[in-house]
Formats: sequence, structure tokens, C-alpha cells
Amino acid sequence: MTTRLANGGTAVQRFWTGDYYNEGNSSNRDSIFDKLKEECGVFGVFGHPEAANLSFFGLHALQHRGEESCGICTSDDGTFHYHRGMGLVKEVFDRDRLEGLKGSHAIGHVRYSTSGASQLGNAQPLVFKYRGGDLAICTNGNLVNEPGIRKELEESGSIFQTTSDTEVIAHLIARSSKDLVEAVRDAFQRLIGGYAFLIMTKDKVIAACDPHGLRPLVMGRLGDAYIFASESCALETTGAEFVRDVEPGELLVLDKDGLHETRFAPIERRAICAMEYIYFARPDSDIYGLNLHSARKRMGQVLAQEAFVDADIVTGVPDSSISAAIGYAEQTGIPYELGLIKNKYTGRTFIQPSQELREKGVKMKLSAVRKVVEGKRVVMIDDSIVRGTTSLRIVNMLREAGALEVHVRITSPPFMNPCYYGIDTPNPADLIASSKTVEEIRQAINADSLFFLSEQGLIDSVGAHPNEKNGGLCLACFNNDYPTAVRFEEAKLTSCSCD
Amino acid sequence: MTTRLANGGTAVQRFWTGDYYNEGNSSNRDSIFDKLKEECGVFGVFGHPEAANLSFFGLHALQHRGEESCGICTSDDGTFHYHRGMGLVKEVFDRDRLEGLKGSHAIGHVRYSTSGASQLGNAQPLVFKYRGGDLAICTNGNLVNEPGIRKELEESGSIFQTTSDTEVIAHLIARSSKDLVEAVRDAFQRLIGGYAFLIMTKDKVIAACDPHGLRPLVMGRLGDAYIFASESCALETTGAEFVRDVEPGELLVLDKDGLHETRFAPIERRAICAMEYIYFARPDSDIYGLNLHSARKRMGQVLAQEAFVDADIVTGVPDSSISAAIGYAEQTGIPYELGLIKNKYTGRTFIQPSQELREKGVKMKLSAVRKVVEGKRVVMIDDSIVRGTTSLRIVNMLREAGALEVHVRITSPPFMNPCYYGIDTPNPADLIASSKTVEEIRQAINADSLFFLSEQGLIDSVGAHPNEKNGGLCLACFNNDYPTAVRFEEAKLTSCSCD
Amino acid sequence: MTTRLANGGTAVQRFWTGDYYNEGNSSNRDSIFDKLKEECGVFGVFGHPEAANLSFFGLHALQHRGEESCGICTSDDGTFHYHRGMGLVKEVFDRDRLEGLKGSHAIGHVRYSTSGASQLGNAQPLVFKYRGGDLAICTNGNLVNEPGIRKELEESGSIFQTTSDTEVIAHLIARSSKDLVEAVRDAFQRLIGGYAFLIMTKDKVIAACDPHGLRPLVMGRLGDAYIFASESCALETTGAEFVRDVEPGELLVLDKDGLHETRFAPIERRAICAMEYIYFARPDSDIYGLNLHSARKRMGQVLAQEAFVDADIVTGVPDSSISAAIGYAEQTGIPYELGLIKNKYTGRTFIQPSQELREKGVKMKLSAVRKVVEGKRVVMIDDSIVRGTTSLRIVNMLREAGALEVHVRITSPPFMNPCYYGIDTPNPADLIASSKTVEEIRQAINADSLFFLSEQGLIDSVGAHPNEKNGGLCLACFNNDYPTAVRFEEAKLTSCSCD
Amino acid sequence: MTTRLANGGTAVQRFWTGDYYNEGNSSNRDSIFDKLKEECGVFGVFGHPEAANLSFFGLHALQHRGEESCGICTSDDGTFHYHRGMGLVKEVFDRDRLEGLKGSHAIGHVRYSTSGASQLGNAQPLVFKYRGGDLAICTNGNLVNEPGIRKELEESGSIFQTTSDTEVIAHLIARSSKDLVEAVRDAFQRLIGGYAFLIMTKDKVIAACDPHGLRPLVMGRLGDAYIFASESCALETTGAEFVRDVEPGELLVLDKDGLHETRFAPIERRAICAMEYIYFARPDSDIYGLNLHSARKRMGQVLAQEAFVDADIVTGVPDSSISAAIGYAEQTGIPYELGLIKNKYTGRTFIQPSQELREKGVKMKLSAVRKVVEGKRVVMIDDSIVRGTTSLRIVNMLREAGALEVHVRITSPPFMNPCYYGIDTPNPADLIASSKTVEEIRQAINADSLFFLSEQGLIDSVGAHPNEKNGGLCLACFNNDYPTAVRFEEAKLTSCSCD
Repeated sequence: MTTRLANGGTAVQRFWTGDYYNEGNSSNRDSIFDKLKEECGVFGVFGHPEAANLSFFGLHALQHRGEESCGICTSDDGTFHYHRGMGLVKEVFDRDRLEGLKGSHAIGHVRYSTSGASQLGNAQPLVFKYRGGDLAICTNGNLVNEPGIRKELEESGSIFQTTSDTEVIAHLIARSSKDLVEAVRDAFQRLIGGYAFLIMTKDKVIAACDPHGLRPLVMGRLGDAYIFASESCALETTGAEFVRDVEPGELLVLDKDGLHETRFAPIERRAICAMEYIYFARPDSDIYGLNLHSARKRMGQVLAQEAFVDADIVTGVPDSSISAAIGYAEQTGIPYELGLIKNKYTGRTFIQPSQELREKGVKMKLSAVRKVVEGKRVVMIDDSIVRGTTSLRIVNMLREAGALEVHVRITSPPFMNPCYYGIDTPNPADLIASSKTVEEIRQAINADSLFFLSEQGLIDSVGAHPNEKNGGLCLACFNNDYPTAVRFEEAKLTSCSCD
Repeated sequence: MTTRLANGGTAVQRFWTGDYYNEGNSSNRDSIFDKLKEECGVFGVFGHPEAANLSFFGLHALQHRGEESCGICTSDDGTFHYHRGMGLVKEVFDRDRLEGLKGSHAIGHVRYSTSGASQLGNAQPLVFKYRGGDLAICTNGNLVNEPGIRKELEESGSIFQTTSDTEVIAHLIARSSKDLVEAVRDAFQRLIGGYAFLIMTKDKVIAACDPHGLRPLVMGRLGDAYIFASESCALETTGAEFVRDVEPGELLVLDKDGLHETRFAPIERRAICAMEYIYFARPDSDIYGLNLHSARKRMGQVLAQEAFVDADIVTGVPDSSISAAIGYAEQTGIPYELGLIKNKYTGRTFIQPSQELREKGVKMKLSAVRKVVEGKRVVMIDDSIVRGTTSLRIVNMLREAGALEVHVRITSPPFMNPCYYGIDTPNPADLIASSKTVEEIRQAINADSLFFLSEQGLIDSVGAHPNEKNGGLCLACFNNDYPTAVRFEEAKLTSCSCD
Repeated sequence: MTTRLANGGTAVQRFWTGDYYNEGNSSNRDSIFDKLKEECGVFGVFGHPEAANLSFFGLHALQHRGEESCGICTSDDGTFHYHRGMGLVKEVFDRDRLEGLKGSHAIGHVRYSTSGASQLGNAQPLVFKYRGGDLAICTNGNLVNEPGIRKELEESGSIFQTTSDTEVIAHLIARSSKDLVEAVRDAFQRLIGGYAFLIMTKDKVIAACDPHGLRPLVMGRLGDAYIFASESCALETTGAEFVRDVEPGELLVLDKDGLHETRFAPIERRAICAMEYIYFARPDSDIYGLNLHSARKRMGQVLAQEAFVDADIVTGVPDSSISAAIGYAEQTGIPYELGLIKNKYTGRTFIQPSQELREKGVKMKLSAVRKVVEGKRVVMIDDSIVRGTTSLRIVNMLREAGALEVHVRITSPPFMNPCYYGIDTPNPADLIASSKTVEEIRQAINADSLFFLSEQGLIDSVGAHPNEKNGGLCLACFNNDYPTAVRFEEAKLTSCSCD
Repeated sequence: MTTRLANGGTAVQRFWTGDYYNEGNSSNRDSIFDKLKEECGVFGVFGHPEAANLSFFGLHALQHRGEESCGICTSDDGTFHYHRGMGLVKEVFDRDRLEGLKGSHAIGHVRYSTSGASQLGNAQPLVFKYRGGDLAICTNGNLVNEPGIRKELEESGSIFQTTSDTEVIAHLIARSSKDLVEAVRDAFQRLIGGYAFLIMTKDKVIAACDPHGLRPLVMGRLGDAYIFASESCALETTGAEFVRDVEPGELLVLDKDGLHETRFAPIERRAICAMEYIYFARPDSDIYGLNLHSARKRMGQVLAQEAFVDADIVTGVPDSSISAAIGYAEQTGIPYELGLIKNKYTGRTFIQPSQELREKGVKMKLSAVRKVVEGKRVVMIDDSIVRGTTSLRIVNMLREAGALEVHVRITSPPFMNPCYYGIDTPNPADLIASSKTVEEIRQAINADSLFFLSEQGLIDSVGAHPNEKNGGLCLACFNNDYPTAVRFEEAKLTSCSCD
């Protein structure tokens, strides 16, 4: 038995035993972890006649948070309509699909891309029927104590059709004898983890954020309608006005009487995921009032102060490190150049160069620009080093293109610990920083020098709450300081970020 | 609220309020009922290294029982793999999909085609996790008392993601504290209806048939492996040897120790669905030892004895009534001719003739063959009359092609009552035979004469159990004699045959 | 160099060197010739506001004549619109495609399915620009002297983008200095072969048939519009009234002044392809006033007179031999039974049983019905024997299902010679009848007895022109009497029927 | 009659009368011209066992030059294999397709995206048969005198199946009585225009560039193989080593004896297309030794010198103007910021915001980043202004996001004249700079100030041949100085760049 918890295996074991089911051929799973995976994104509308269309455009703006699958559920005077599918938002929905999704309330979801197993069953929103009627739920994040709750539910006779946290929440709500909002409140009080939830019934949309605010969620207005989104860029895209971030522990309920601002928990220590600032969120989004492009540029500037090196050019690994590289260049006066370029047409393709062609230099995605780097001392800015294999490949690419020196500067501290809150991280043993010193990593990636941004530098760059611990950030992946209890005997590692 | 039972609406109400959800544009729902809909088909393998491939070919042979969606789940030393999709078996599965479905046990399903709403969520097998591990279930048929059980389960906190009976069974099994086989036995003892079930766990395949044997299920052997299928044609297709029909009330369990032949109920009055003989099953299948082509040919012969008419040619409405027409022709000596022809490339297409073109005679599916019918007195054999609209259209088509007289002969008695056991029937008020006499129907369909096969004629043609009531057939749709209790205040009409 | 004529290779050599180009993986080419291939079909409309829609339905009715690719070209006050694609008519065209095909004149085409090479480039109608404007052409049939004309054209500087005869015609027309109709007439006078052509310019539709009438073409009326079609079933489908067959050597021109009935050649000896009667045309079509179902039934009756055998049942190989089997049964009094059944969902699928499964009896397409044939002496009716491999397989299938004896009756004489007029035939060496006696064939296909319909029997059954040689039929594949010169040093064997 | 030249209409007329044919619904043609269209790209391989795979990766690297359709033709010891389709390289080709393209020589093509009409018939390489055997041709660019040659060819009986220049070339080659290389040479000597050609026969690959070098073409080596590509980035991607640019008027022939460097014309005045530097080519490509990113950065720097403005931030319109914006920022010391962001998942999608949603601010592709531009004086860098509509939209977007001032700086001179050499330009009347002064344009696009890079500034930034007129650039679209004769009575405007 390899499926989740079925044999009482530990979380880590489960994590490595594979997918619950398999569709098609799985590619080499290792390749997943060359790059941290985007999490999911959620989007919701209450009270707009074009709820499904707005969700389409909102989810399209959040597409970077999940390319695997997506879905939208609408409530049309109590009748639910939904459609979910594998693929990009623009692929899964066409005009006919959207026209079928009638109603003025909607919640939608984009899900990140796992390699190999395409799991339509896990596409969200999940839609349930229970005693109280219809219920649609979607989420971004991860519950640490989901395995325990799931086991308890199974022991009292529950069945599960997905591996998603969402289904656990639905069971908790359905088993409560209280009214919906109270049942939701009770359910959230049982959850430990980092998450943003959108829940829809026939006449309500409910939004909630975990007590540490680990995962982002914002609220906006579009005329009389309310909009929720994982990132503010989706408000901008849909023409909605930003109102505010959903606060940790809040439970916002929209019904025919309007917005009810309640909480299911007090704000505990604020701990918004630092990786949202470093890598995940779109540069045109704001989190707690801070624009992401500006934040990343500042990381580059602070990194330049912490780790100056005399060089001829600065280049960033596209797309995520361009802002930081420009900041580094501005701070140092070293020209910013396009030393690396990404083919924008890459994306899902099943044709890869053969081993032989790859060895001869065939590249699909990223190339070094010979004319730019040849004979130059290069500062290469990247956002993080996970296994080190990608960094090594890029450094070597620059050297083969004629770079004299390659100085690697990373806009985050060494990534050493797994995430339990929604970021898909490899086996801790494979995190290069968990077993190697910076100098050893430098050698492993063949760099002339290597510096990581300091924790304080990161906090100074992006800390929205300077008076809080870690500036209000979760830095657990860097410093092992998890904001919640993480009891390993039952905690669930994030094997896929929305489970 | 329009969804199932949520407002305590009666079954009939629920039936007419539409689909739980909607994907794409729904075509005119009325058009569903021009023809009775095929039910679903199930196929199972225990102990064959090519379990998924066999399921593919077996389901392909059962495709006529359901064209909407299909799925296969395999158990590979306890790891479940599955794939489900909308479309024909050959469309949903390709080589890669099948190769991913490793394992030596499998169950699979084809689901019939509803018009408009394409419900991937209802595709089977459904796969669950519960305390005991993984569970896959698929079914053909319908449970009369599902709404009551569902309501009871909802009241104790269950959630439902589909409208399928299968999910109800899974809940009943999961809530039992007994071992799997006992839990399954207990669950079946609660069910009222007509059904054939296949259930798979990591190391077992279980097959069961309702206590009246309303829905067909056969068992075969392929070397050491066991095969189950809704119809024997799927055994033939996969090269398996027919062993026997699964008997009413039986619970057959296959595990590492082989076949365990048990029952969860005694055989009550046998009542195999007469429509399987009349229309649904493939002509090359056998049910209780009787070949379907031969049975239909005999219906035609008996009908000829009961309702001879002097005519020039006999023609059958393709494809289902060809065998009966040949029987009628043989019995009467009137030549069998191809007076009606069906375009074999029809099938799912979204382009239909415009109203104007249709009025001018553009036909997509069925045409009368002018040279054959012109100036002739035609006996037209069909299997049933549901609303009468299709019969009228065909009679007129024959007349427009020059038929002098059209004598309609139906190989079943008048269809007057809804089915509760898996056949999608229209609103009883729309069954033409429920409100009109045979003479009135004759006028409505513009026939020169009209005769229905008598109940006794039907029993004589196909009754495999002559000593049982109705020859062991369920004739409820003709004579209102339902083999089970059908309490209308909670009974579930078959809105789609596998729910 | 393996491409056509480039090395001056003989026709037969060229025929075996493969396709001009290749798309995707080619399956085993031998499998092509288990069954003679359908030819192509053409459909045309002059003067109807829904010309494209009518073409859609007309081509759908002609789909059996070609499943590989299809296309429609319309003329909209002189602007041409066209769309061509691989696949069935209902797959290639959707509502948007059809709406884009504006105009009141149209010609369309369905092309038969080659195995392996899918040749979009050869899809028709081909559309050209030349000095005179736009020209669209489609054809059914084959030109014997195309290689010579092509070579001559190449030598004077022509280039070819397809391997289609159609392109040769276009060159001939374009090179003429006469007006279009004269140019077309001159072109046809150069052609030797069997063909039906539809040609469209901005304001004309031209239809022509070879001087022997080898390939069928009919004309109909729909209100004021004129319709052309390869078979009359397409008239029936579109609601058009049959007017007459296009006569051998005729050149019918439709323009704003109406129909101009001219000829480019006198009727030479009439020689309509016998295989149209035996196998290709739809049973509801009429050719020269003779309905195809009736013709085939009569073949079965004549065959019964020529080759009676005492047996228990008669069965036909579906679908093409059902009519003949019924005729045989009627004539002999032996009951017609469904001893063989074809899975109607087969069609293009890329999944085939593995060798191992096939040996164990897994069948995709055709099965014997055990209950029907077990213990019986079976007369099996088929339309032709090409290589003998299929016949052997079917005979064995019947024996494995328990048939005591299998008596094969073929509704055509032995197929011994290649076709040069549009039927895809294998290498003559592989035609079993070209090297074996009937008795040897009987042994090769494992039959208890074997009879072929005599030439006279065939003529008696279908000869529409009893006073002409061979009853006005082309029987060259049976008796080597080709109606045209077939100079082997340059003749083109039909490698694909529309070239 | 609206098709090309059929009525002897002038080029300009023809240009505006629409497409030769139409597939599906055409969107508003005006929208084409909001942005200059990329031209096409070519790629060739001589002498590598993985010729098709290399072409796949090479064309993928050239995808930005054409997203509409693509194709590859290989020569496998003289047998041609090819596949062409609509869509991106990664969509049109899969592993099976590539495996079918056997052979060690290949040429391939990507074609730019027209709006509405998807013209598979025009996909390249075009493949012909002629007296000399097989011929495959693909091209980038446009022939000015194609209409005259086409007319002449039509008058002597040629037929055309496409609207592509390529077909004209093929006719010229086929009509020559000389050997292939001489025939090709003669053909090129007749051509006037800007073009790069790749021609393949069974055993040769020929590359040629027009006598002014208007369109780029480079040669590389990969082991013993030769590679040709429109841009050097495709060499880098395939691991090939850059050898040299193909010179104006060169005719390079590769055969079994290796490379033959010949010419069909002397170098006339060099005039490489300036828009390649400004906009089309990938930033990691080099043209005549100049890296494009560096060139664009220098344009930004020169523009800063020519048109400094005091501001708070510099931002570029993504993606093409990022390099220039960074140059402008570096030169002025004004920080570069991400004031505009493009959704990277856009691309072909058929769902657009409704008018109502668009008015309310729903954006699909480009957004201004409020936090970055709010309260700021913004310098917005763009590469060109065509109609002005896009610029107005972006300026307004920045203002709505709170920009205090928007200063537009364009890295090219005013675009005033149509291109005859391969760039799809709108009706000259719609080129805003052809009828308005800079001040009027400034008002039309609602900018606070507007400056265009001067011609001299452009030449200084990118002129690879400083001693030649215009630095060896074609600046005709800016200064009306066309390097070739452009006789309007028959010249062909570039309606689609590869015709």
C-alpha cells in the first residue's frame, strides 16, 4: 500500500512513495525539485453578474501560481455550475464553458504543475453536497495536521476521493450540527497550517486566512461586488479596487446583508511566507502594501551592500531575478546586462533534446548570451538554491559562453528546511544547504564566489511588520523557526502545495 | 435550490429540475426521450497481467451500454491507478494511459450518454480512501431507496461529491466496523433496486447482483484469471470462456485464495429486465443461456403469428430491430428488405440541419430507401414506442419515400410505466402509451395498422425461467408489476441510469 | 529517389516504393489490402444560399467513400473560401468553419483512408489560381495516362505539389489559351481512365464523367439549385430530387444561364465499375436506376441458384454482405442468422490487441456469435476475396465458435487483376486468385466449400445495360478486359484511388 | 473578384481586398496593425543524423519570428518527408512526427501570425516535384516584383496553389533548362526584394540572401554538419558554432563535396533591415557581430542623450523595450522600474473581455503597476509607434495607475512608409507618423512629451557598416530611401511577410 497514511506510514515516508494514482507516464520525479514549485491561487466574486468571466480573467492573472489545472464554480440563485480541467485557464475555458457558468457568485482556483501525474481528481474547487446543501471550497496552502484529522475522520467512517485538504474541511463542516458559519469557524479552529480558503454556498462566499497569515489573500471591490484573490495583480486585472489584505485569523462572510468581518482566531505572530516576496508572487502584486518588484529590487540592493564584488556586468536568472539584478546593478554601478535569456515559448512540451544532443549543447529553455558575457566578469543573481543542480548548470552555461568569472548572489538565505505550509520542497537530504557549507556549495555550483542574502537583509528589504519577530515573515525554511507546531509523527509535508 | 433532495422535494420533482451541474450548453432535454437510453456497463478482471488492456477491449465491446464516459481502475500490488474521461473507450484511452494502469486486477465502466450535461464527476469507477484502504466501485443499475439512505447519511455528516449511487455504497461500507466482505454484505442488504456491482480493493474483486437479478452480469475465465462483464459479448471479445451468469443475490469474492461463492440475499422472484432482451443488450450476447439475436428473431416470429398483415416487404428500424424484422419476414414469407438505413458515421456531432433545411428534407441519421419502399405495402418493425415522436417521423419518412401502406409492429408491449431500475425514462405523462389507446397511438404515428407484442408473446420468446412469474422477467414498464417495493415518497426515479 | 516517376521507374515499381511523404508512423502497409479500399466521393452545389451546409450533409452521406480527409470550397460572388482537413466530415467541420464558407456554389470531397501516411496535402478540393482566376477541382477515380501527361508537363516546366490527378488537370486547363469550358473540354479529351470530376470557377460548376462511365455521378435538383453527387444517397440526405445519372463523356456546365448539357466525348462502351455494385456504394443508393441493396440481394439469390449447399444457417460478413446473405437465405429457405457481428464503435483507433492477447482470442472488430453458429453448418456470404487472409480469419473464427461446416459463397468472381480506375488494389502477386485455383483458395481459407458468383450471374444481377458488353459493367478485375488502353510502360496503377 | 491580381488590380488594391481564402471567422483586421508583425524564420541542416530534431530546436528558438504555422522537410537519401501545421513548433511536432522525419538534411520554417485567417496552405516549407525531382523551399522576406513575375508565369500557363513568393521561385527554377544551381542562380537574378532563402533537393541545401542583405541569415557548424538560421540564437540553442553571416547576394551550396561559396549578384549597397535591430530579432542574437540586447541598450543610451527628461522612473514596454529602457536608465541615472507588466500566459486565446468589462478596466495582457508608478514622473520607452492606438492605451494605463507625467521615448525614428521587404505594415494612411507631426502624435497619445530616436542616433547605435550609406541599414520606413526599385504599379506591398 503506497497511498496516504493507509498503512500509518510517517509523513516523510508517504511523501516519497508516490502519487495516489497515475495518469500517463511519469517523468523523472527528481526534475520537479530543480525549482521550487509555485503554489496555488484562489479567486472569488460575490455579487457581480459576470462572476464567471471575472473569475476567468482573475485566474488568468494568477496563472503563475499554478499551471496544472484550474476550475470555477458559480452559484446561480442556489444552483451550482462548475467546470474543472487540466491545463491553463485559457485552455480549460472557452466561451461556451463560461456562458454555462451562470450566477453572480463564484470561486475559482489554479493549481500548480506536478511533473508527470496529472491529477484531475484534485482539481479545485471541490464541490460537495451535505445536509445543508451545496458547498464549494478552494484553497491555497497546506495543513500540517491534516493527516491526523483525516485519520480520525476515516475512523469514524468518512471516505475520501481526493488527497486534498479541502475534502477534510468539507467533512468537518458537514459533521457539525451548527449553522454554516459556526461550522466553518469550528473547522478552522481545528486546523494547523498555512492557508487561504474560499468557501461558497448557494448564497454566501466566505474567505479565511490562517492565524499567522502565512498565505496571502486580498479583498477588493468592483462596483457593488466583492472580489477576493491570492494576489493584488488579479484585482488590477479585473478592474477591481484594492481594499485590504485579509488579516491572519479572519473569517470574512459575504451574504445578502453584505460583508461580515469576523475572526475564528486572534492574530498570532504574523508570519507571511518569505518566499512569496522572494519568488512566487507576481512583481506587479503588492503584499501588505509592498510592491513585489520594488521588494525584489531592494533585495538586490541590500545584497549588493552585503556582498559587493568587482565585476563587469550583472545579470539575473530570468524571469524571477530580473528585478533583483537591476537593484544590484543600480546599487553597485555595474551595468545590468541580459547575460541569460529564457525562451518564452517554452512551457509544457514533451519533446526534450536527446542525451546526445543535450551534451552537444542543445538548449530548450535558458541560454547564455555569448556576446554579452564573453570575456566578462559576471555577477549572476538568482532567488534561491534548492538542490544546486540548476545553479551549476547555469554557471557552466555562462562559462561556456566565455564568462571569465561567475559570482553568484542569491536573494535569500540558504534554503535548509522543508516547508509545511504549501511550498513543494524536495526530500530534506537533497536540499544542498542542509548538508553543505556555503563554501562547499560554491564549489558544487562551480562559482567564483557565492553569497546569500542575510536573514536581516531579507527582513530589511521586505519586512512589512518591523516590530514583529522576523519582521512578520515566516523564515522557517531558512532558520527552522516554524510559526506553528510541526509534530513530525503526524505532520504532513507539502507534497503538493494545495493538499 | 434545485439539487437532489436538498429541499426534500419528491423524486419526481427532483427528476425534472435538471442537472446538479452543467458543463457547456445543454441541448433540448426533451430530445433525450425519443429513445430509451442504454444503461451502463461494467467489466472486471482478477488475476491477469494485462488487466487494463483486457478491460479496454472488454469495455469497448460494452460501448453500446454507455457512450458518455468511461474509466478503468487497476490495483497493482495494492497501489491503485485509474483514469476516467468523457468519450468513447477508444478516445479516452491511448497506449500511454493503458501502460500507466499497471496491475493484475481491474474494474472498469462505460456510462451512458445524457444529452447536454457532460458529467465527468460522475464517471466511474469511483475511487475512495477509507479506514480500510483504497476502494474502487462501479455499478450498472439504480437504487430505489438511495434518496433515503443518502438523506440519512447526510444527516449524520456525510458529504457527497457525485450524484451516483456508488458513493452511497462507499459510505455504507466505510461506516461499518466489520471486515470488508461483511461490510459489503451489510451494505447490499440495505439496498433496494436493480443493480450489478463490481468492487475492488487492493487484493480483492467483488461482484454482486440484486436479489431479483434485474441487471445482467456474467462471469468468465481467461486462463487462471476471472472476468466479469455486463454482457457475455465482452467475454467473447477478450477471449474468455463463459462460466455462468451471476445469480440474483450472489456476492462473489475473489482473493488470493480464489473464488468464494456467497450470497447476501436469497434469490427472490427472478425478474431480469425485459428491455435487455428487447433492446439494450448486443445481439451477440447471451443472457441466461439465450442468445439475443435469436431472442429478437423469435420476437419477430411470434409477433408475426400474433399480428400478421399482408404486405410487400418487411423492414426493421436499424440497428436494434433488424433481427426481429428478419424473424417476421421468415415467419410470414414476406421478403425482408432494407427500407430504412442509418448513417453509420453519425454519433456525436454538433452540427444539425437548420430548421429550414430539415423541413426541406435534410437528414443526418436515418433515411428511407425510395427504390425499396416506393409503391410497396411496408411492415415496419421497431422495438418500442416511447413518446411516439420518433415513430411518427419514421412512418412519415417511409410515406414520403412512396410507401403505399405502413404497418407498424412493435416487439414489446406498450411502454406505460417508469423504470426504477436503471432505464432512463421520460416523465410518465410523456409516455404515449400511458394516456392513449393502441388505436390512438396508431393515429398519432400515422400508421395504417399498429400491433404490440403481447406480454405472453414476449415471455414465450425470451423467458428463460418459464416456471417463474412473467417467465422470470421484469415487465413493470409494461404491466406495473414492480418486483421491489417502490415507495414514491422517497423512491428515486432513474434520471440517469447509473445513479 | 523513391518518388513518383522521378527516375522513370515503371508504374508497378513506383507503386511499391511508398508514399511521397510520410506523416507520423506508418503501420504495416500490408494490412491495407485485407480489404479493397473505398474510393473517394464528390459533392457539388450550384445556386443555393446554404451551399456549404448542403455540402456538409451531402459529404456526410458519402463518408463511406472516404474517411481519411475531406474538404469544401465555396464561391461567394467570386471569392473562394475553403477548408480541408484530416478526419471525418463531422470532425473536420464545425459550425464556425461552415459559417466561414459563404457563397451559393460549392464543391466538396471525401477521400479514402490510406494506412499510415496521412496526406493533408492531397486533401481535396484542390484550389488554384491561374490566368483565368480561381479554380477548384475535385475528383473520384484514376487516370491511366497521368504519368505520361505529368512527365510531359514537368518537361515543359510545371511543378507539382501533390500526387493527385487533379493537379494534372489544372495544369492542362491553365496552359490552354481557350476559354474555360473549351480548355476543360480539351483537357478531358487527353485523359484516359475512370473518373468523375467537379470543377468550380467563380461563377460556374462543371461536372464530367469519363467516356466509359466507370465512376458514378448523379445530378439532382433542390428547388432552383443543382446538386451533383457520387451517389444518389447524398441527394436523398439533402432533400434533393434525383434527376439523372451523368452519362459517360458528358460535360455539364452550370452558369448564370442555367444548365448546359454538352459532351467532350461520345459514349464509348459503357463500363460502370462492378465493384460499386458489389461493395462500394451505399445500399440505399441507386446506380442507373438500380437500388444497391436490391442488387446485392439479387446477387445472393443468383449465387444460391449457382451454388446451393445444404446448411443450417446463412450469415453475411457485415456490413457489406448482409443484403446478399438475406437474398441467399430467401432463395434457399435456410434461415438467415447473425453469425458474425461487427463492433460499431470501431473505426480509427490506435490501440490494437498485443500479439499475445490476439492469440488468446481478443477481437476488436468482428466476432462470431457462438450461440448462433455452434453445432451448425454455416453458409458465409462475403463480397470478395482479395488476399485471402481476412477470409481465413473469419472462417477460423466461425470454426472456433463451434461451426461444424463453413461454406463460403462470394458475390463476385475471383478478383485477379489490378484496377487502374480508382480502386486501391494490392500487388497483383498478392491477389490470391491470380495464382491459385478455386480449390486452392478453398484450402487456403480453410472452408468446407467455396464458390464465386459467375460473371454471367453478376451481369444478370446488376447489369443495367443488358445489350452492352458485360451488361455495361467493367469486369476487368475479374476478366482482364479493360475498357481503356492500359499501356503498362506508363500507366498508373491506382495506388490511392483519387490520384 | 477579390483575389490576387486576377483583375489586374494594383498592388495596393489587392492588399486591401482581403485574404485569398478564409478559415473560420476573421477577427477585425485592423487589430493586426497595433503592432508590427514579426516576419518569418528559416532553419536548415546539412549532414547531421538528427536533422529533424535539430530543426525542431532551432525553429523553437526562432518561434518569435512566427507563431502561426511551421514545418520541417527532410531529405532521407533522396526521399522527402515533411510535416507542416498551424500552431507553435512544440504544438505541431511531437515525438512521432519527428521520428517520421528521417534523413540528414532538413529545412524548416516558422511563419508569423496573421489575425483571423489561418492559412495552412501557405505553411512552409513548400515541397514541389519538377523535372529535376523533389524540391523544398522556404523563405523569409518579400519580393517586390513577385506580382509581375506571377502574372507572366500565369500568362504562360502556370497555376498557383498559394499566395507565397516561394511558389513563384519554384516555377522559375522548374522552367529553366539549366542544372539546378544555375537555375536557382538565374531565378534569384530576376528577384527584387528583401529575402533569405533555403532550398533543398535530395542531396543539396542551398542558402541565399538578397543583394542588399535586407533579411538576416547566418551559417554555423555543428561537428561536420552545416546549419543555417535566420538568427544566431538558433545556432546557440542547437549547440552549433557561429561561422559567419551569409553575405548579400551570396549563393551557398552544400552538397556531398562540401560548401561551395558562390554569388548570384554582387553586394549592392548594404541595407540590413533596421527593424531587426529595433524590434524583431531576439536580444540574444547577433547580427553582423552586434548583439541585439547591447544594440537596444545603446539605443536607449543614445536616446537619453538626445532626449533627456527629468523624471522619477524609467520603464519599458515589455518585452521588446526592456533593454532600451535599462540603457536609458543607466545613462540618465533615473532608476529603471517595472512600471508595466505583461501576462506571460497570454498568447492565443479566443476569450476577450466584453466591452463592458474592458471599460471597467479588465486587462488580459498588459498592466501598469500602480505601486510603482503612482505619484511618479514616468519615462516610458517603446520601440516604435505604428498607428498610435497602442501607445495611447499604454499612456492612459499609466495615468490611471497614478503616473503624474508620462514621457514617451521611442527607440526609432517616426515610422512613415510601408515596408516592401517583409514587415507587415498597415495602410500608409493609418501610419500615424505619415500624417501627423511629432507634436500632434504627442497629443494623440496623450503624452507629456514625446521624442523619437534620430536616424543618426539609430545608425550610431547599431550601424555595423559605418562607411556605408545609413550605416548599412535599410531605413526606408523612416526616410523613404528604398534600397531597391519599388515600382508601385506592380510592386507587392508586404501583406504577409513571407509572401
